[in-house]
Amino acid sequence: MRPDLSKLDDFLDEVGADGYLVYADADESDQRYLSGFAAPDPYVTLYDGDLHLLVSSLEYGRAKREAPTDDVARIADFDYGAKREEYGPHGARDRVLAEFLAERGVSSVAAPARFPLATADGLRDLGVEVAAETDGVVTEIRATKTDEEIEHVRGAQRANEVALARAEELVRESEIDDGVLVHDGEALTSERVRREMEIELLRRGYALDEAIVACGAAAADPHDRGSGPLRPDEPVIVDVFPRDKASKYYADMTRTFVRGEPSGTVREWYDLTERAMEAALDAVEPGATGRDVHDAVCDVYEAAGEPTLRSDPTTETGFIHSTGHGVGLDVHELPRIADVDEELEPGHVITIEPGLYDPDVGGVRIEDLVCVTEDGYENLTSYPKELVVE
Amino acid sequence: MRPDLSKLDDFLDEVGADGYLVYADADESDQRYLSGFAAPDPYVTLYDGDLHLLVSSLEYGRAKREAPTDDVARIADFDYGAKREEYGPHGARDRVLAEFLAERGVSSVAAPARFPLATADGLRDLGVEVAAETDGVVTEIRATKTDEEIEHVRGAQRANEVALARAEELVRESEIDDGVLVHDGEALTSERVRREMEIELLRRGYALDEAIVACGAAAADPHDRGSGPLRPDEPVIVDVFPRDKASKYYADMTRTFVRGEPSGTVREWYDLTERAMEAALDAVEPGATGRDVHDAVCDVYEAAGEPTLRSDPTTETGFIHSTGHGVGLDVHELPRIADVDEELEPGHVITIEPGLYDPDVGGVRIEDLVCVTEDGYENLTSYPKELVVE
Repeated sequence: MRPDLSKLDDFLDEVGADGYLVYADADESDQRYLSGFAAPDPYVTLYDGDLHLLVSSLEYGRAKREAPTDDVARIADFDYGAKREEYGPHGARDRVLAEFLAERGVSSVAAPARFPLATADGLRDLGVEVAAETDGVVTEIRATKTDEEIEHVRGAQRANEVALARAEELVRESEIDDGVLVHDGEALTSERVRREMEIELLRRGYALDEAIVACGAAAADPHDRGSGPLRPDEPVIVDVFPRDKASKYYADMTRTFVRGEPSGTVREWYDLTERAMEAALDAVEPGATGRDVHDAVCDVYEAAGEPTLRSDPTTETGFIHSTGHGVGLDVHELPRIADVDEELEPGHVITIEPGLYDPDVGGVRIEDLVCVTEDGYENLTSYPKELVVE
Repeated sequence: MRPDLSKLDDFLDEVGADGYLVYADADESDQRYLSGFAAPDPYVTLYDGDLHLLVSSLEYGRAKREAPTDDVARIADFDYGAKREEYGPHGARDRVLAEFLAERGVSSVAAPARFPLATADGLRDLGVEVAAETDGVVTEIRATKTDEEIEHVRGAQRANEVALARAEELVRESEIDDGVLVHDGEALTSERVRREMEIELLRRGYALDEAIVACGAAAADPHDRGSGPLRPDEPVIVDVFPRDKASKYYADMTRTFVRGEPSGTVREWYDLTERAMEAALDAVEPGATGRDVHDAVCDVYEAAGEPTLRSDPTTETGFIHSTGHGVGLDVHELPRIADVDEELEPGHVITIEPGLYDPDVGGVRIEDLVCVTEDGYENLTSYPKELVVE
């Protein structure tokens, strides 16, 4: 199922460009999304209401079979060898691209902010108008998922639950020895939990590049991935975002575990965070803004006397990040669930991840992944929420 | 140990630019290399004989600790909030960057070919001269490795040998059942061998994004990764290129295995390919060109009556690729070991990978990774070369 690109049509009308031009490899999610194709080296996608690809000979056969368009051209069709003799590889590619555009009646293009400068300048020298757009129009379109995209994310979240269960099992089965967790005779470290989760995911076709397994003061820094031995009686934040190796869609989930006896503060934080989660979920529906959902979390925390960035923009403890973000081909994408006016729409896939942090206490965070529906939301996450594991 | 950037100094003198400007994340190897730092989101590196970084507040503390320079600035130091109010996020970032350059006396910059267009146009509007360079000057410098870089590659090749040994073990221990290889009661597929190698590598801190495990006609297409059950009596090409998760350096190695009885043609191809490998290695020394090494391979194959791209540029069987490539932060980088005049230098790390292909026979390839030294080369690969495993 191809995505709805009518917003891109509108954008091209508005800026008066003949087409939208991308020249990037499929690691750039806008390229993968717009082209409906994937290659490891940069290739060209032109959208002018229809889709046109320009690829290397190496990718040509596969692009003809796989890309959702009948118009796939290859660089070699444009007398590339002779052009290369005369103009060098860059000059030759620019000329090929200019001819490809001209053949399709395109003399002006809008391009993403990160479009390659040398190619833009080369095209301009050849008379093509090139204007960078900074609205991120394709990124914005990607926020709304098709049913097929939602299925990819759902599958990744199922795999994620297996990984989380493995982390929880390691923590539960560990012994407490001299102030650290020990599993099978060896210290249970952040690194080891990450690796074991990665292996579980790998066996199911999912990649895990990074994951947070953080304990103590490390857990109080939302950007610290965690390292070294995990300790008893302290909250361990496990935040996992695997990617489907085939579809390239991500999932995202966080749970917080304690092996042993959590402090009264940590128990209280956990209960508050569960309530903040419920309040946020209650606010999720089409037409609600990111701010509406974020405010629901801040309301719960502030009513309990915990600082938030809303009540104190300089606070370094309490609720010190936004409530969530979109998840898709990128692990962080639109929409933002924060202090913004953007409205939720059916098909948005977003995280809800309230949390509380203090270097003297550690951190607590719970994160579910949900899909906005016509009348509310569907939670794509079914993993239980239990603080103490034993 | 910082790399020798004198070629970049010369380049800036030659083009008359005050500095070299990169704005990219650390996935772009030139950025990682030049900055000596790594962040997942785009950050700015300026080189003008000295190194200067401009990063987000989130990365500032780590950049101060880790980057090999005393000049680390953060976007927030340039009144970003007020600029954002007035000019939006893109306009504000452009103005911050222009001020950062002006403070350092830089009014003209050379930039990589893939420098982001919106930023270049924004800087130009603010009076900064920006010219894309298409020589790939930093990529060229990266071809020559420091001792530390060579150690990273060497370590990755050690891990690679463990992965190869695992693949060979799976093939050796498999049963032959109804025309396919079966291991532990299940078909031994390309996918399964890849996954098992990936797990071995993961346990050692190495990532394996892709690997070729290809049998039969798939092995005859050097770009086919292979899929489905492996078969007896046919050559299986195993081409593995893991990446050190910490240093981000790659290794690369290929072996070809047969479980059962190879055909006479395959045995002959294997012997020829071993001889082509020896001939190529004999040609590796400082001052030799990529062509000298490539020719040594072509000479062996052509003398035996096998077609090569040198003897027939349109051939689709025989030796249908170049002899090798550099390996470092990218798995394919400079120098090229092909029909080119570029000369080898001490510190180049290159693959030597002769092979023969025909869809009716399959493929045979052997690939070692070597480092060019003052008086020849050091082979970084110690894995044995045996066709038949049983």
